[in-house]
Amino acid sequence: MTTSIQLAGGISGPENLRPLLATALDALGKGTVDRGGPLPTGGADAVGALFAEDVLPWEGDGAETALDGLAKAFAEGAADPAHPSCVAHLHTPPLAIAVAADLVAGVLNSSLDSWDQAPSGTHVESQVIHALAGLVGYDPEVASGAVTSGGTESNLTGLLLAREHALSQAAGAHGVESGIPPELHGRLRILCSEATHFSVARSAGVLGLGEEAVVQVPLGSDNRMDPQALRSTLADLRSRGDIPVAVVATAGTTDLGVIDPLPEIAEIAAEHSTWLHVDAAYGGGALFSERLAPLLTGVDRADSVALDLHKLGWQPVAAGILLARRAAAFDPIERRVAYLNTADDEAAGFQSLLGRSLRTTRRPDAFKIAVTFRALGRRGMGELVDRCHEQARNAAATVREHPRLELYQEPVLTTVIFRYRPESGDPDAINAEVRRTLLRGGRAVVGRTELDGSVWLKLTLLNPNTTEPEINDLLAELVTAAVDEETR
Amino acid sequence: MTTSIQLAGGISGPENLRPLLATALDALGKGTVDRGGPLPTGGADAVGALFAEDVLPWEGDGAETALDGLAKAFAEGAADPAHPSCVAHLHTPPLAIAVAADLVAGVLNSSLDSWDQAPSGTHVESQVIHALAGLVGYDPEVASGAVTSGGTESNLTGLLLAREHALSQAAGAHGVESGIPPELHGRLRILCSEATHFSVARSAGVLGLGEEAVVQVPLGSDNRMDPQALRSTLADLRSRGDIPVAVVATAGTTDLGVIDPLPEIAEIAAEHSTWLHVDAAYGGGALFSERLAPLLTGVDRADSVALDLHKLGWQPVAAGILLARRAAAFDPIERRVAYLNTADDEAAGFQSLLGRSLRTTRRPDAFKIAVTFRALGRRGMGELVDRCHEQARNAAATVREHPRLELYQEPVLTTVIFRYRPESGDPDAINAEVRRTLLRGGRAVVGRTELDGSVWLKLTLLNPNTTEPEINDLLAELVTAAVDEETR
Repeated sequence: MTTSIQLAGGISGPENLRPLLATALDALGKGTVDRGGPLPTGGADAVGALFAEDVLPWEGDGAETALDGLAKAFAEGAADPAHPSCVAHLHTPPLAIAVAADLVAGVLNSSLDSWDQAPSGTHVESQVIHALAGLVGYDPEVASGAVTSGGTESNLTGLLLAREHALSQAAGAHGVESGIPPELHGRLRILCSEATHFSVARSAGVLGLGEEAVVQVPLGSDNRMDPQALRSTLADLRSRGDIPVAVVATAGTTDLGVIDPLPEIAEIAAEHSTWLHVDAAYGGGALFSERLAPLLTGVDRADSVALDLHKLGWQPVAAGILLARRAAAFDPIERRVAYLNTADDEAAGFQSLLGRSLRTTRRPDAFKIAVTFRALGRRGMGELVDRCHEQARNAAATVREHPRLELYQEPVLTTVIFRYRPESGDPDAINAEVRRTLLRGGRAVVGRTELDGSVWLKLTLLNPNTTEPEINDLLAELVTAAVDEETR
Repeated sequence: MTTSIQLAGGISGPENLRPLLATALDALGKGTVDRGGPLPTGGADAVGALFAEDVLPWEGDGAETALDGLAKAFAEGAADPAHPSCVAHLHTPPLAIAVAADLVAGVLNSSLDSWDQAPSGTHVESQVIHALAGLVGYDPEVASGAVTSGGTESNLTGLLLAREHALSQAAGAHGVESGIPPELHGRLRILCSEATHFSVARSAGVLGLGEEAVVQVPLGSDNRMDPQALRSTLADLRSRGDIPVAVVATAGTTDLGVIDPLPEIAEIAAEHSTWLHVDAAYGGGALFSERLAPLLTGVDRADSVALDLHKLGWQPVAAGILLARRAAAFDPIERRVAYLNTADDEAAGFQSLLGRSLRTTRRPDAFKIAVTFRALGRRGMGELVDRCHEQARNAAATVREHPRLELYQEPVLTTVIFRYRPESGDPDAINAEVRRTLLRGGRAVVGRTELDGSVWLKLTLLNPNTTEPEINDLLAELVTAAVDEETR
């Protein structure tokens, strides 16, 4: 008689999990207390010291021991976005409801590449895509999409659909089937602004267009893509015989959170019959807020849209979304596979979502999204967005009034870009070093970036519970550290 | 005073989660009991009826109500791989310990694209990759890799590295930077067998080579790639001036589980200085077993290897792995990004894993793998593999001795390919319909595929607790349904 292995699913799954989840929660609590701040003190070496043992020994320690020890170390060594001083990135503190719901997806281990691995998963993803298509203003009966691993996969997939669309128009050639026709080498172009996320250039590289295919349209004085510049760039490309594969507009740039002028860009893209992809990975969350949703007016004219609910959606990673205005856009990546989705099985009602994604195995990340949506409603989601937006406005006001701090520009969404102004010394070096000092000391996780050739610091405010005094304390601590650095 | 939002992290996270996790487990239990079998009865319409409500209402229901209702419906509508009759796919029943550990990753929401979002996550992924590099026989100090969303992303990334390698050799051209040189259009080739997973052809399409770049090397009589045929195919390509970008060998094909002759293939690839990618998404798990590991002899000679611990590793999705024998292979996808990994921050010890993946945001799926490894040890992992292998051998014996069943060939890993032999009627139609009858009735999830132009059925045995009588009962139920179908 062999011993029974403790699985997460089946009738005995819940009882197998109950003690282990209690252990995980206790260890999380202990690790969080031992950390005592937003991140561990002492940098990478100190973190490494928390994990001294061989990760794959011959004999195991048993479940309780392994989980207790590693979960405590992992929590102690983490940068926790639920701490009010962990504000560097679009690194959201997830809602308890979303994390609890995600457990269910893990237990059942549904996979969306065939119906018979995910009867309920297939249905729930379709529902979530339908709801989000409606949220962006698409006709949900005509649109389609899928949950992705994040904005990067959404951008890659959107640009692949754009590539296929352009190739089918340009030469009757099929990119997926026979590659990029040699006569089009170096002529297939993607237009975006210099503030566009790097995953757009990376996607061009992956897709065989080359990163040089990306043409940067100048920004206007408001740091948004300049529509007149887009118009003239497109005309220039056309006159050289180049083919614009896509215009990529950004709704919520990573640093400033600015939103390109979508109605004007959509108009120009339409004039040129060019695919419009809107990267709304960050700004898409504004659609939940009655106050901020108007910022995204025009997004419904995009051919494809990237969203990321692990940003302004408070989901644990992954919760990316790709939507296409017309389901037919996915035709080039549709597939028939003998072991997954034969025509006779699909005709009999067992329809799979295989053709909606470049992945095969695919966790139903839509489930946690669905539970969160039902729990909070659109009004509750919007309230979270509004709270973080308000924090950013308040923080910007504090920065603006502080004699030693400089605000880059007024916040649009939930980021605040600023820097310390030293009386002497290299501002770039001092700002970069202050950030590292706070990291090493376990005191704060502040972001940094480069704008106009200089180093700037960044607060990305995504924690709806953070208070104005907490942010002011963080800024005061940063200034103190900067003064120390300057006078060292 | 605004109300506090219940987050998963921070000091109050564990207490916020405790009641919600209890609700989730109770709902999973209820849904599993109500389902009463491996999948719901009644097909897609019945599943849809479980989810009657709008997924994004204006006002939410609150966390408890939403979670209880949706988790119960999701479980009731799922195909649960922990049920002994859910055996269609490489759709593993996850271990309770892996699912509990995955909760920790969700709570802290670490993301591996920068050190300051994942101090402990960065360390743990590096440890797991080090251990797995050792497991495949690489020098872990020289090798590198990353956790991926699955075998498909692993194959795409491995083939991207191969494309860059080939282009750097062929023409000094850089695929990532300037695309595929026009003079190489249609000449960049990927060699694999006809049993290779479809994600290889799909990757060729994504990467701009075109699916037609894939050249199928004939199988030998043992259904493994024929090394002599590979040798002559490579010679033919060379004589035509084509460039072999990669040879893709499979260690564990999706249907038969066969493993291509890796030592011979590695030798031939080396003779031609051609990148060898081994897709060991399924068969890589055999490395945990002392008994089966010799099947993968030669895998250490691959330039890149895909593994999937959500198959023979009992992880919840996602738990794919890409390994490269030399870390330098990742150079073409390395990136410096001002907001993530500046050179001065990296020099100061804050090193990120951004350059190991095509994704940006990336959940630390390595954590659940690390906890599982420490809990079970390599011996414990190997025992799970051996149990499932033994089940497959026993099931094959039952099939072989059954007068109405036909075995395709002896199992290699944990799949059994067989079919019902009707006395009259179309065998393909009857086998396909029997499978659908079992699905509609909620009785069994049996796989199907096509081999030699015919429909075959498949048991993919991944549940270490399944007993021989349970498998025999499933086969008996299938035969009864088939006889009914035949005589209808």
